[in-house]
Amino acid sequence: MAEFTDAADYGLLSPVWAGTDGAAQTGDRRIIQALLDVELAWLRVLADAGVIAPQVPGDVAPACQADLYDPASLAARSAGGGNPVIPLLSDLRAKVRETSPAAADAVHTAATSQDILDTALMLVTADTLAGIAADAGRTMAALAGLAVEHRGTLCVARTLTQHSLPSTFGLRAAQWLHGVGQATEALEAAAARLPLQWGGGSGTLAALRNVVDASGSAAAPLDLADQLAARLGLAAPPAPWQGNRLPVTAVGAALQDLLSAAGKIANDILLMSRPEVGEVSEPRAAGRGGSSAMPQKRNPVLSVLIRSAALAGPGYGVQLQTAAGAADDERPGGSWHTEWQALRSLLRLASGAAAKLAELTEGLTVNTGTLRENLDAAGPLVVSERLMSTVAPLLDADGGPGTGKTRLQELVSTSLATGNSLAELLRQALPADVMSDAELSAQLDPANYVGEASALIDRIVAAYPVVAAYPVRSSR
Amino acid sequence: MAEFTDAADYGLLSPVWAGTDGAAQTGDRRIIQALLDVELAWLRVLADAGVIAPQVPGDVAPACQADLYDPASLAARSAGGGNPVIPLLSDLRAKVRETSPAAADAVHTAATSQDILDTALMLVTADTLAGIAADAGRTMAALAGLAVEHRGTLCVARTLTQHSLPSTFGLRAAQWLHGVGQATEALEAAAARLPLQWGGGSGTLAALRNVVDASGSAAAPLDLADQLAARLGLAAPPAPWQGNRLPVTAVGAALQDLLSAAGKIANDILLMSRPEVGEVSEPRAAGRGGSSAMPQKRNPVLSVLIRSAALAGPGYGVQLQTAAGAADDERPGGSWHTEWQALRSLLRLASGAAAKLAELTEGLTVNTGTLRENLDAAGPLVVSERLMSTVAPLLDADGGPGTGKTRLQELVSTSLATGNSLAELLRQALPADVMSDAELSAQLDPANYVGEASALIDRIVAAYPVVAAYPVRSSR
Amino acid sequence: MAEFTDAADYGLLSPVWAGTDGAAQTGDRRIIQALLDVELAWLRVLADAGVIAPQVPGDVAPACQADLYDPASLAARSAGGGNPVIPLLSDLRAKVRETSPAAADAVHTAATSQDILDTALMLVTADTLAGIAADAGRTMAALAGLAVEHRGTLCVARTLTQHSLPSTFGLRAAQWLHGVGQATEALEAAAARLPLQWGGGSGTLAALRNVVDASGSAAAPLDLADQLAARLGLAAPPAPWQGNRLPVTAVGAALQDLLSAAGKIANDILLMSRPEVGEVSEPRAAGRGGSSAMPQKRNPVLSVLIRSAALAGPGYGVQLQTAAGAADDERPGGSWHTEWQALRSLLRLASGAAAKLAELTEGLTVNTGTLRENLDAAGPLVVSERLMSTVAPLLDADGGPGTGKTRLQELVSTSLATGNSLAELLRQALPADVMSDAELSAQLDPANYVGEASALIDRIVAAYPVVAAYPVRSSR
Amino acid sequence: MAEFTDAADYGLLSPVWAGTDGAAQTGDRRIIQALLDVELAWLRVLADAGVIAPQVPGDVAPACQADLYDPASLAARSAGGGNPVIPLLSDLRAKVRETSPAAADAVHTAATSQDILDTALMLVTADTLAGIAADAGRTMAALAGLAVEHRGTLCVARTLTQHSLPSTFGLRAAQWLHGVGQATEALEAAAARLPLQWGGGSGTLAALRNVVDASGSAAAPLDLADQLAARLGLAAPPAPWQGNRLPVTAVGAALQDLLSAAGKIANDILLMSRPEVGEVSEPRAAGRGGSSAMPQKRNPVLSVLIRSAALAGPGYGVQLQTAAGAADDERPGGSWHTEWQALRSLLRLASGAAAKLAELTEGLTVNTGTLRENLDAAGPLVVSERLMSTVAPLLDADGGPGTGKTRLQELVSTSLATGNSLAELLRQALPADVMSDAELSAQLDPANYVGEASALIDRIVAAYPVVAAYPVRSSR
Repeated sequence: MAEFTDAADYGLLSPVWAGTDGAAQTGDRRIIQALLDVELAWLRVLADAGVIAPQVPGDVAPACQADLYDPASLAARSAGGGNPVIPLLSDLRAKVRETSPAAADAVHTAATSQDILDTALMLVTADTLAGIAADAGRTMAALAGLAVEHRGTLCVARTLTQHSLPSTFGLRAAQWLHGVGQATEALEAAAARLPLQWGGGSGTLAALRNVVDASGSAAAPLDLADQLAARLGLAAPPAPWQGNRLPVTAVGAALQDLLSAAGKIANDILLMSRPEVGEVSEPRAAGRGGSSAMPQKRNPVLSVLIRSAALAGPGYGVQLQTAAGAADDERPGGSWHTEWQALRSLLRLASGAAAKLAELTEGLTVNTGTLRENLDAAGPLVVSERLMSTVAPLLDADGGPGTGKTRLQELVSTSLATGNSLAELLRQALPADVMSDAELSAQLDPANYVGEASALIDRIVAAYPVVAAYPVRSSR
Repeated sequence: MAEFTDAADYGLLSPVWAGTDGAAQTGDRRIIQALLDVELAWLRVLADAGVIAPQVPGDVAPACQADLYDPASLAARSAGGGNPVIPLLSDLRAKVRETSPAAADAVHTAATSQDILDTALMLVTADTLAGIAADAGRTMAALAGLAVEHRGTLCVARTLTQHSLPSTFGLRAAQWLHGVGQATEALEAAAARLPLQWGGGSGTLAALRNVVDASGSAAAPLDLADQLAARLGLAAPPAPWQGNRLPVTAVGAALQDLLSAAGKIANDILLMSRPEVGEVSEPRAAGRGGSSAMPQKRNPVLSVLIRSAALAGPGYGVQLQTAAGAADDERPGGSWHTEWQALRSLLRLASGAAAKLAELTEGLTVNTGTLRENLDAAGPLVVSERLMSTVAPLLDADGGPGTGKTRLQELVSTSLATGNSLAELLRQALPADVMSDAELSAQLDPANYVGEASALIDRIVAAYPVVAAYPVRSSR
Repeated sequence: MAEFTDAADYGLLSPVWAGTDGAAQTGDRRIIQALLDVELAWLRVLADAGVIAPQVPGDVAPACQADLYDPASLAARSAGGGNPVIPLLSDLRAKVRETSPAAADAVHTAATSQDILDTALMLVTADTLAGIAADAGRTMAALAGLAVEHRGTLCVARTLTQHSLPSTFGLRAAQWLHGVGQATEALEAAAARLPLQWGGGSGTLAALRNVVDASGSAAAPLDLADQLAARLGLAAPPAPWQGNRLPVTAVGAALQDLLSAAGKIANDILLMSRPEVGEVSEPRAAGRGGSSAMPQKRNPVLSVLIRSAALAGPGYGVQLQTAAGAADDERPGGSWHTEWQALRSLLRLASGAAAKLAELTEGLTVNTGTLRENLDAAGPLVVSERLMSTVAPLLDADGGPGTGKTRLQELVSTSLATGNSLAELLRQALPADVMSDAELSAQLDPANYVGEASALIDRIVAAYPVVAAYPVRSSR
Repeated sequence: MAEFTDAADYGLLSPVWAGTDGAAQTGDRRIIQALLDVELAWLRVLADAGVIAPQVPGDVAPACQADLYDPASLAARSAGGGNPVIPLLSDLRAKVRETSPAAADAVHTAATSQDILDTALMLVTADTLAGIAADAGRTMAALAGLAVEHRGTLCVARTLTQHSLPSTFGLRAAQWLHGVGQATEALEAAAARLPLQWGGGSGTLAALRNVVDASGSAAAPLDLADQLAARLGLAAPPAPWQGNRLPVTAVGAALQDLLSAAGKIANDILLMSRPEVGEVSEPRAAGRGGSSAMPQKRNPVLSVLIRSAALAGPGYGVQLQTAAGAADDERPGGSWHTEWQALRSLLRLASGAAAKLAELTEGLTVNTGTLRENLDAAGPLVVSERLMSTVAPLLDADGGPGTGKTRLQELVSTSLATGNSLAELLRQALPADVMSDAELSAQLDPANYVGEASALIDRIVAAYPVVAAYPVRSSR
């Protein structure tokens, strides 16, 4: 089958992110652009500090366009030195040399390939996180809207798959917001901390010190690194982190959390949109949810794909964390190389899931009637917790103190075993003078037993306000 | 083999944590104590608010001692309801009922087993994190000391396993601090956010609302929950998180990061203490590092065990994250149950590794002579990066501008291929009037090419000051 | 909290295995017994070959009882040398020395701690696998029974959560058997290949060669190792595998597969036993499925716990596989140590899940009426795939060839959108002379559209016969 | 950054597989070709059985060329139905319809998208495994050659990073073969079992039964499926496995094992090629192993990349296993979708690592002199295990039976602490009449203490013969 020379992955096996903005933001072309962006920004810092000639950045800039390079060729050649910076640098210098040999020599001054690659991946991460945050913001707004709109929409809560107590759909939506809100906070914190990597060959900045000294510039090498961070919109870390990979695991953890929060919602929607449950429906769109063979199918494909991403996330997390814990030396041989694809894959998954989650939550159809029907079908058993405290004491009479709970438990068991209504069993057990029909009805009404659902909605909505999305860096 | 009824795990297969304080802090007895602590603290909150009779907590307190219960029996009976709270509650109520039936009825008022278990695990986590932070603080102090002490101790840096450039052992120790410092910051942030779980049967606090109303108390249910959080030293979250598990993944991520930072150090020490390298030695202790058969063995067993923990960490992380992303409903059926042992195991690993790391770094022997010998053995090739910028231009003469780099690369290759000293090859290639012997020696001296190593040590030490460890909660 | 010195884990946080036979088979005491079994069996091999004095095994045997040793102490002391063999050996020799100094010297002749520990873990694995296989056999018998019994029990199949086509509950049960059968085959293959580990200090058997030569025995060292394998009921590998850990990942993969097959069944039962679906119920038992607060709860706790195990399995798998890939040298420093607890944990999970799965499948209640009701509720849409091939061509008339499919799709869409019965829409669209009422009914009858369900049941049942469980080794 | 519309991944961040045959075998184009291969092969089976018109396959064949389709467009459109088969089928039918509407209608007869996709992935897996096996065969031949060639090349063995005993490099190479041999056996077994997936909409083959009946053919549906398996070179399973995913985890486990076996070798070579150790060197090639800044660098980049793959493997394994255990219904909503990219990624990693491992082992330079020097540097301590049995008894005289071991241990400790030669210490301790100089030298000679190393080489080489690689299927 070696007749196929095109090994490219366009996402054919990853529909959750294929074709999305996030996919384009993380493709090989975009990685190449980020590598070039870092090389050029560094030249600008050096030129501004008088370390290299002022015209160098201008001479190099025209060659810093990703579409001038062949990603497949660069990928294939990256095996030689073990990373893509080495062949890209070779091509870049050759291109610059055509017009300016001196500028070609200045490219990559005092840098090492790890500085370029780590920093470029942080840039790509920053851009992708901005898109994810924007989509998460849409989701949060949608969920806050659902929470408030359905503050009074009764439904049945479920624990360990079984009906438990009455609740409201508004609280369920608010709890979804609770998850996405926490994950978004973590993502924003991670975005703010994405660091520059700048250490030179072995993290001492020795080459830079050498170059600065030779140039006669008074600049301090660490200040130049900090200036590069500022120019690129990245955080300036106390030191390089070539062998210390927690900046990568930190963003990985935040991305996984977003996927898990999205997965929780998708799982719930998959359950609630089962035909037997029917409480919600995914938004419809032309060509969505169909089957290759069954014309009636309306598959909840947004939720399906989000769930697939949530199930995949931890596998990439394990790669990042294992790599961090297996690191050694001043630049790890092997574990560093494991991170790159894992991080990109996680960005793609999270980005695709965030986009689909926004579409899903903005367009979700809530079937309030069915929500109520399911609650009613659960019947008075769903308030039996309450009856243990309010009605059971009234049943004590026959057997003495404390026996009412046992008696009520028997009535519940009888109802479960026979299908006879607990309401009727209770009516028989409780004389009307102990509890009137109206009082008993009130006790059995699920609407009277939703506790602090409304207050909780307010607390969650207040805790996770939707902030204006932070802008993508427009230039460097 | 069913003749063994004792299924207990004392850590026989996990020497990294067996026998440590962290093991005791996370054993089944300690879990039982935490479960009892939560039940009792809640009664105190209710009594203080006038929701239950004031004497109840006092009546219940004597039964809230873990050593009154049989952990093996509780473990075995936990399969019935799927969690250990149910059998413990049964035993607790029976014990209290012997002296106070009314107090027995009040136990677990308006609570659900998930509230008790999640909150108890947060308490155990908080206590274990305090111990980890204390040990991490010892490590940070030791590493800061090594960094400063060895500011001028030259060594050879290694990238992708090969000699790269000169550096200092002080910077290497500072970089270890960089990792542990970041992880400790993350742990402390996680410790400060560990939340109470309090929602009742399905996260609405309905039973509590009912009980409060019946009692005539004016307390707001959510205020009572917040009071419980304060009493237990936990954060008060906006809402219950019974189906939203990011509080668990957050602490899991921080624990994994600590393990990865520790693993990086252990990996380096394992490499540096290989006989052929010999740059450091683990602290000796009676009975440590021996072999069952080879009397000469001095195994670096602290590092070995720390590394084993770092390699295991991601497996527990994947369990926590998968569980979070597989959650559904108001209480997840199955994924919730996956978390408990994963979290405990991760606490044990991190706690054991932190204790051993403190001992390792406090007692590390640094063989400064061997560090220097290895650098010297690397020879002048280790500054060839420098020579490309300082010496190569002087070699341009013959071939025109830019050809010096090619010439120098040839000399480097010749030195590598023949074993002839690069210093001698350079001396032959460079007339003395172009560069004097003294100048050439200075160029080749690795001590002149460690860049900003000293400044980086200062930046790292300043960035991660050792804070006084926060105290373990002494009572609740 | 250091007041608790008992760090033991009895399974309080792992109800899926707490209290089971598999837990006892894998507890620290059982590990100690297996370590002692290996030491003693080796002495028997040596004595039989005339390498050591014939009375040694008899002198050592009384000390080879696990209950003579303190597992907590051994666990704590295992940190010194990094594994539990070293302190156990010390205690064992001391005990034997009381009665026979010469026998004490002979203990552990030419062995190394890795030989003892790896082999002991294989023994524990073998015993636990036997129990798992027995439980899997019960499950397979139960599922084969359900498959045959419900060969004609119609139900609705579901794909991507939505109703798809008619099927039978018998086929669903057969597919569960398909999964468990494959996993059991893999487990039995793994059990048959569990190898002895025997290599001495560094895998050369040099000490053994030395001892054999000194004894004047004509035995070949590798033959002695093979004899030990035979005596212990383990496979004799071509060579030691101290640094080559695929024997461990192989059994890990089989255990994970069993958990995944069990998890699939549990997931289905959790879905089918939701109140809105109601197709099956878990077997009831006293004290099972209850809640701490809601008296009506009947939680499907067997399925919940099995699912929790399936979600946890991959985390242990990742530890085993990472350890294998991180191995180095003749005995890996750290990665080897990672395996032990991971393997035990996986054995515990699989053993507990297998026991619970047997109980679940043997006692499952199948609600045939509800299965039929859910199929009927799905209505004729569930055979719309069929109608595309049988009825659509009859609708071509108006619009020409091929237009019938479009017309039928429209009718399906109308039915979905309006809730009007597809049967009625078809009746209106198809004149009675094109298709009679009886013919149309036959087309719409789901019983006529279950394809090869029955034949598939037969194929699966034939492919996975329940073999007699292989016996646990009774002695060594 | 949305200016980049090309999201393609050519492997820029995965140099271990970028540009290899395995990458091309698993790219999106190749996936598309496999999907088309399955559709066409099925038409051939149906035509041969008389179920569809005989000319259909010929009419469809010209459209079954992957280069007629746009993978990026198909990828983007796959989100609609959740998988790539749906848009490909639409494009394929449109293309066929241009020349043969009847053939267009026949395409995908009685199939479902899962049948096509699962089967296509098995085809791609089969082809990739063939390439991996061929490369593994090269590695096995190279390692067997090294094992035999270096049967007598002495070296020092290492356990827990420290010198342990003498060994031979031949045995080390044989142990590498031991690992790769086991993994290759597992891969070949997995390759032989890769199953067809064929079940129709919900695993009953109902549509096929319908079509066969309508055609008047006497073919049995399950026979047709078996014929398709035979035509595609896949195994015929007892039943479809749409919800039962162990066929996928089985191949995943084998691929991970290959990566772990390769990782073990890479780890050893990385350690042995460190400058301080210097026992082996990677094969050199133009452009390989260089650095972007340090001209002297000769990085062991083949090993680095293989190690990176071994560290990444478990993360994909966890995705496959989690998906299998999270499956539900007759076709899982989400977990199925998780598998596709995980399987492809694992194939790519294993394929790239296998190719690089073959190159590495075929070209490995073994520095026999340095191997010996390192052994000599270890000195007589490395045979101290032997001395415990041969020399220690001779030291008993002074202190009585058994005291010789203590005395020898003291001498070893003295040697370790003072650096004095153990040989000299022994000479002083042992009178010449107890042991002559020649006898003592023989005792201390490591060449006399390599045990069964040679026999083990023979056993391993015999156990893992290199079989002729099985051919890639040339046509379907």
